[in-house]
Parts: sequence; C-alpha cells; structure tokens
Amino acid sequence: MAMNRIYFLFIVLLFFHNAQSQSPEILKIREYRTRQESHILNDLLRLLSVPNTATDTSGLQENANMLTEIMKQSGIQNVQFLKADELSAPVVYGEIMTAGATRTIVFYAHYDGQPVDPSQWAKGLSPFVPKIYTGRIDQGATEVPRSQTPIDPNWRIYARGSSDDKAGIMAILYSYQAIKNTNTRLTCNIKFFFEGEEEHGSEHLVNILDKYKQLLQSDLWIICDGPIHQTGRKQIVFGVRGDAGIDITVYGPSRPLHSGHYGNWAPNPAMRLAKLLASMKDDNGKVTVKGFYDDMRPVTAAEKKAIAVLPSVDEQMEKELGIREPEMKGKNLYESLLLPSLNIRGMQSANIGDKASNVIPVSATASIDMRLVPGNESFRQQQKVIDHVQRQGYYVTENDPTAEERMKYNKIAKIVRRPSYDAMRTPMDNDFAKGVINAVRGATKEEVLLVPTMGGSLPLIHLEKKLNAKIIILPIANHDNNQHAENENLRLQNFWDGIEILASVMIMP
Amino acid sequence: MAMNRIYFLFIVLLFFHNAQSQSPEILKIREYRTRQESHILNDLLRLLSVPNTATDTSGLQENANMLTEIMKQSGIQNVQFLKADELSAPVVYGEIMTAGATRTIVFYAHYDGQPVDPSQWAKGLSPFVPKIYTGRIDQGATEVPRSQTPIDPNWRIYARGSSDDKAGIMAILYSYQAIKNTNTRLTCNIKFFFEGEEEHGSEHLVNILDKYKQLLQSDLWIICDGPIHQTGRKQIVFGVRGDAGIDITVYGPSRPLHSGHYGNWAPNPAMRLAKLLASMKDDNGKVTVKGFYDDMRPVTAAEKKAIAVLPSVDEQMEKELGIREPEMKGKNLYESLLLPSLNIRGMQSANIGDKASNVIPVSATASIDMRLVPGNESFRQQQKVIDHVQRQGYYVTENDPTAEERMKYNKIAKIVRRPSYDAMRTPMDNDFAKGVINAVRGATKEEVLLVPTMGGSLPLIHLEKKLNAKIIILPIANHDNNQHAENENLRLQNFWDGIEILASVMIMP
Repeated sequence: MAMNRIYFLFIVLLFFHNAQSQSPEILKIREYRTRQESHILNDLLRLLSVPNTATDTSGLQENANMLTEIMKQSGIQNVQFLKADELSAPVVYGEIMTAGATRTIVFYAHYDGQPVDPSQWAKGLSPFVPKIYTGRIDQGATEVPRSQTPIDPNWRIYARGSSDDKAGIMAILYSYQAIKNTNTRLTCNIKFFFEGEEEHGSEHLVNILDKYKQLLQSDLWIICDGPIHQTGRKQIVFGVRGDAGIDITVYGPSRPLHSGHYGNWAPNPAMRLAKLLASMKDDNGKVTVKGFYDDMRPVTAAEKKAIAVLPSVDEQMEKELGIREPEMKGKNLYESLLLPSLNIRGMQSANIGDKASNVIPVSATASIDMRLVPGNESFRQQQKVIDHVQRQGYYVTENDPTAEERMKYNKIAKIVRRPSYDAMRTPMDNDFAKGVINAVRGATKEEVLLVPTMGGSLPLIHLEKKLNAKIIILPIANHDNNQHAENENLRLQNFWDGIEILASVMIMP
Repeated sequence: MAMNRIYFLFIVLLFFHNAQSQSPEILKIREYRTRQESHILNDLLRLLSVPNTATDTSGLQENANMLTEIMKQSGIQNVQFLKADELSAPVVYGEIMTAGATRTIVFYAHYDGQPVDPSQWAKGLSPFVPKIYTGRIDQGATEVPRSQTPIDPNWRIYARGSSDDKAGIMAILYSYQAIKNTNTRLTCNIKFFFEGEEEHGSEHLVNILDKYKQLLQSDLWIICDGPIHQTGRKQIVFGVRGDAGIDITVYGPSRPLHSGHYGNWAPNPAMRLAKLLASMKDDNGKVTVKGFYDDMRPVTAAEKKAIAVLPSVDEQMEKELGIREPEMKGKNLYESLLLPSLNIRGMQSANIGDKASNVIPVSATASIDMRLVPGNESFRQQQKVIDHVQRQGYYVTENDPTAEERMKYNKIAKIVRRPSYDAMRTPMDNDFAKGVINAVRGATKEEVLLVPTMGGSLPLIHLEKKLNAKIIILPIANHDNNQHAENENLRLQNFWDGIEILASVMIMP
C-alpha cells in the first residue's frame, strides 16, 4: 500500500515535470519501458551476439531468424523474408493492419553491420561479445555485470551494430510492443522492413522493391538509422547523401623485389598511388577531379535557411576529435555535407612498422568512398574519377594486368566500381513532414532540430523512385557511437528516447 | 672392380671437361659434395624449419643452438656465442687455426630473416615448413618428396631464409667440411661469424665488434650474402649501400569517423600522407628532398669502367618483372644503384577492399627505407627527410600527438628513426681483392663479374671501421629468389656452386 502511494506520487511528479510538452500517451509508453528495461536490454544483447558482417551469410541469416522470432512473439502479422534471390541476406518483413486506418507507414532499419577488425577494438572488447560499460571506455568507464540493476541511462553497450543499426530495429519493435501492451491507439497501418545488406551497398534492394511492390504499398517511410545531433538534441533529417565507392590498385614489379638490389630502378607502386591520390584534392580540401562538382543541384534557399538556424558544432567537434582545422577551408560542417565528397577509407601497400620488409611492393590499393548530393549520378561520379586516373597517364583496366599489358603500358590502374546509389532529399514543408515534426516535438521536452540532409548514406532514393513514398529519417543513436569503426557503442538513454520518438509517430493524429 | 673402373673414367672425363679453368682441389670438393648431397640438403631443411624473424627471440636462439651443434660436429674449435647484452640474438662464432698460416679470413653470413606474412605465400607453402619444388612455383613447378633421388640441381627449396641467408651459412660450413674430409690443404686461419640481427639493422654489431676485438682480429672478411648476377653469372662484389629507415605517421581525427557524417570536413590522414609522400619524388624518379644527393662521393673512374663492362640486364629484368620503364628516367640498373634511394617499403591506413569500412581513418603510416652510398651519413640522411616533412608544414614529433599538440598544430607527423648504417666500398685493385678474384676464377669455368657495389645493404662499414679489415662479398643465391618477400627460394645448383667458390677462397695460395 505504502509502495503504491509512492509509485503514484512518482508518476504524478513525472507528469508535471514533463507536462508542458509530453503527451499522456508518451508517458504511458515510458512507464511501460521503465518496467521492461531488463527484458529489452537482454533481447538487444542477444541480438548483438550474432555476427552480422556482409561476408558472414550464416550469421546474417541467424540475425534474420532471431528477428522473426521476436516479431512473432510481439503479435506482428505476416512475418516473412523478402528475397531478391537465394544469395542475398533477406529483408525481414512484418505488418500490423489497423482497422479504419487511411495511412501506411513503413519503419525501416537494418540488421547488417560494417566489417570488423577485432584487433583494433579496445582491450576486453570483442565485436560480437556485447558488453555493458558505465560510460565511454576511452574515458575510463568500467564494465557492468549484465544482471546489475538499477540500469543507469548513461551506461553504454559496446558491440558491432549496437548503434548502427540494431538499436534502430529494437527501438522500432519495442515502441510497437509498448503501444500494444499499454492499449494505446495506433493511428495507421504499420509495416516493418529490416534490411540485411545496407552496409554492403544494398545491392538487391531495387529488385526487392520491384518484386514486392504491392506488399510494400505505403505513404511514408520512417528510417531509423544514424546518430542524433552532436549537441545531444534530437533531430529529424530530410535527406541523405548518395554513396559511390571505387577501389584503385596500381602496380610495381610483378614479384616483390629486394629494395636494396632494385631500389631506384623498379617503380614503387606506393609512391605511384600517393601521387595519384594527391592529384585528386588541393590543399584546401577541394576535389580537383574534373567536373566533380558540376552536376550538383544548387542548395535551395530553404536548405540554407535550415542550416543557418542549426546550432554550430564545429568548435565542439574540433575539440572532441583533436582537429585544429577542418579539411575544407572556410566551410562549416553543415556546409561541407551539402557537397559531394571524396574520402580515402583505406590504403595499403605491403606492410608497415615491425611487420615491414625491405621490399619494393608489387601493388598498392586505395579504397575510396564518395558521397553524393542531389544531381549527382553515382555511375557518372565514379566515371569522373576513372577519367581523372586516365588523364594522369594510366591505362585503366578492371582486372590485374596481363604480362602483355605490363609491357605495353608504363602505368596501369585496376579500378573496381563498388555498389552505389544516388542521394535523396525530402522537402521539409509537406504534410507528412509537418505531422512527424509535430509528433516528435510532442514526445520530448527538448528542442528538435530539423536538418536538410545527413552526411551519411542510405539507399532511400530507391524507395522514392520505386514506391513514390515520402521519406523521413529519425536517428536515435548517440553521436559519439564510433559507428563503422572499432568500439561501436550505444548510450542507453538514447535508445530509451528512441522508443518514445518512434511510438509518437505510430500514434500521431 | 667394374664399378671402380667406371667411376675412374667418370672422374677423368669430369677433369678434362673442366680442366681449362678448374683446379683438381675444386674437383675433389665437388666429388665430395656430390656424395654428401642428401645429407647436406637434410641439414639445410632442418635449419630452415626453425623460425628466424626478429621478434622471435626463442626461435633465433634455437637457430644459434643448431648451428653450434653442426659446427662442433665438423670439428670447428672455440665455438661460442658472442653477445653484446642479454637481449640480442647471439653471433655464433667458431674458428680453425691453421699451423703456419699468416692470414686470417672471417667468413660472415646471418641466420635471421625478414618478417613474414604467411597469408601472402603461395598455396601449399609456409615460411617455416621448407619444401622442395621441381623449379619455380610461379612457373608451374610441383612438390618433390624429401627423400627423392637423384637430386636435380634445378630443384628449389622454398622457405624464409632459404637464400637470405641460411644458404650462406651452410655453404660456408660445408665448404670447410669438404676441405677437411678430402684432406685438402687450408692456407689460412678461418673464423666463422654468423650474425642473428642483420635483417633488423644489426643493432648490436658495433658493440660486439668492440667487445671481441681481439678474438675477431683478421685480414679479410668474406661476406656470403645476396644473389648472384641476373644473367646467372657468378659475381664478386666490392661494396654495399648503407641503410637508413624511418616510419612516418600522420593523423586525422582522434577516433575513426563515419565517412558520410564527416566526409569533407574531417581531414583524411591517408590523403595527407599521399600528398606528403608525393612531395618527395618527381615524376622522373628523382628524390626532391632538399640536399638528398649532396653528400655523395662522386662515382670514380674505376667504378664507371667496372660497370661499363658488365652485361646489361635491364631488358631481361624489365621483361621478367613486367616493368615497361624503370623508375629513374635515363639510368640503367647499375647506374641507379650508385645513387642513394628512397623507397616506400610499406604504407597503410585503415583497411582496403572487402575489409574496408566507410570511415575517415585516425592515422596513416609509411615505412620508408633509404639506401646510402659512400659520403652519405645515415643519421644526416634521415634528418634531410625530417626537415622536408617540416617544410611541408608539419609539426614533427617522436610520439603520438597529445590533445594539446593536436589543438596547436594543424598537421602533425610522428617520425621514428630505425637502426641504420652507412655504405662501404672496397677498392677493387688491392692484393686481397686480386687473390679472391683469382681463386673464384679458378673455381669456375664461367666468366666472373666484378661489381663495385651491390644495391643491397650490410653493416660492413662497422667491420672496416672497427677492425680495419678488407671486405669482399661473394653472393651465391639465385637472383630470382624472392629475397625479403613471400615465396623466398633457393635453387640447388647455386648452393652447390657456392660451396666450391667459398672453398676456393679457403685454399687460395
């Protein structure tokens, strides 16, 4: 009895504390989540224990199976795998049809993750052995036993996929579960679409959209991926950059040579690659590949206005990342992200440090990713770089050179195009956008930022083209999540907030 | 009786076949070696099974122990380890003092090997599981069972150290054993000096020479290391280039960033490294580091004359290595080796290909080795590159940058100097040189080439300075041995020839 009174008081206080901006439905969702925290956390940790890199086909399938199981247990209907062919990791699909609903919203997230190099993770961490820490491991946080309670919202889970993007999937599923179990009224049909090839270029997405066009009929897609704003504020994002990768390999002697006996005489492929890469950017960070910026649609006045009111994060991020000057002189972070980019994501020739031998290496490779903005066409953007390499005197081929090619051409580059897609931006002033903005604002007492585009990429252009759907991105992960790299992590409070934000959209008027 | 007659006839035929240039002593050595081939091969394979990379202290010690055992069995005296301190891999020393000899020759080789990356070796090969093949594995050779006879001289042994330089050690030891067991007359005192730190910069060699100056008293050092001439001819080499390594690391953000969310804004360390390296050489292969060629002693008329009569190998090597044009425009291989060089022996930033993530890496590293010629001073040559990096706007440090340094300097480079030493050349016209030239010419019916310097490096400058000894290099390995790289190999006939050449010096008048 006494406990019940205290509990009642707590709820009342919570209500008043948030009353100015948070709806009673959201508070009910929160109360449900609070009671279920241990259970939700446990499910998330279980999912994070299953490897999800692109080359691990059986791991990806196991992830898909586990999602199927959770979705069926939640009463989600018509759960099935959508497959373009037998080789692709399946999309896990499910739906909730709501009587009388006139609107269908698809909730998207992906369960595959970026490649891992376990040796680069911090001591005690392993990409697929999720662990809970008291905070940021690089700031001295310590491990927390799995069963410890109460659960501190500042704890972080370390694992590949913890923030990108299994958090997205679990937040979507548990926001629906909270709505259901609190008897909150859904206002739309919900479709769940969990992809398994996002980090590998979404190679089969177009085919899947074609094949299941009827099933995927919808008005709005909510994409739950990416980090929240660097200031810790929630943000609604209306676009993504496209992505076009290429790998460039240049060649030295056909077998590795002793660097003494042939040094000065045999061409060094690492030096050739260095010169080639150096020719692609000037000292102000501007890409010097001919025509690189030509196709881009000019930034609109509305977009300029939107980024003008965003809080500046340059100084904070410079301090946080140990950067004295940004790469592009005179451009802040928001301005930089409105432009296409060219980034060396990896570079290698033979070995370095104590593993290095005194050799002239046989080849040197750079893996490059380019981000695209509206107007850029991914194949054409790749072609600009290929043309640039040719203009530097290279013979370009798609294969390792033959002996004949080696004797015919002095400089040879193998260039491999990786799967790619174009950028997408949704106008910020249509009805769906307004509805989502209002819903999210109703779910939080904090300011919500409206961002024309994120810097990252998602294959949303396919959704727009194939399904004629509107698309809005609701990121939930903490901004310092080491996404795509070692020590990827998720701050719990961001995950809890994510559940409320997503629920607010499912029940928006 | 019949067998004896056939055997006699064989020896007589062999004698006439070689009579014009090969001495009876050498034919006796050859006959002994022929009978012992299986036994010698077995010992070599046993030695090659012991790992010998710089970081494998216990492996190096096991190599040293095995050599000790073989030397003692051969009746070599005063066998002992020479050590500068407890941490270094020992020099294995031994001696044969010859009654009435007025001359002492030290035979040098090294038992340590270059680092290995087993994943880069051909299928079926492993660096420390020596295997015999019918020829070159990249030309379709097949494996030969260990016990198979007769032993074909074109067979090759594949293993780390097979040519560089355990072949040298075993050729020295078995040439002595052949002399002893055929009762051939030694004309000098012999000292054996087998180093264990050569591939790691011979860090402790100077200290060892200081500490054992008395023991190592000598007139001439014969260095058995490196490959024979690319035409297959034997060569006597009178100098080596020096070696000075540095590792350069440049920095991006302090943690890896998502290349979408920060691409264009956060500086990319791979691009910075590319620009830095590209600034070090022009398109004609000339090093553009200020003063790089300033200190070199001009090439002498004798050296110019010597290389002028050497058979040209450029065309052959270009074809063999798939090189259309050499790095330095207008210079042939011999001319290139008379100059100091700057070679990128390894370069890395994050990962490439299927292992690459969409990140902005935190750092990029290049391992550079420079070869030096007489007049260059290794520390000063390293300093020229460090000064060059500073002139490109970099703050140079020896450690990873602190947070304060990151906020103070836009571009930061960590530069680590690796152990290094200067070049050495012996005049080709002194008495020792003439004696060795005559001895080697007497051991072969083929032309012997006289080469002012090899492109490779050995720390011979220390011997010259500390012991005031003359130094001559007698390489024995096949030129296409993949020294320092994957698939290192030794052609057996080169090893057999090496035994005869070394013996000819031990018994030279």
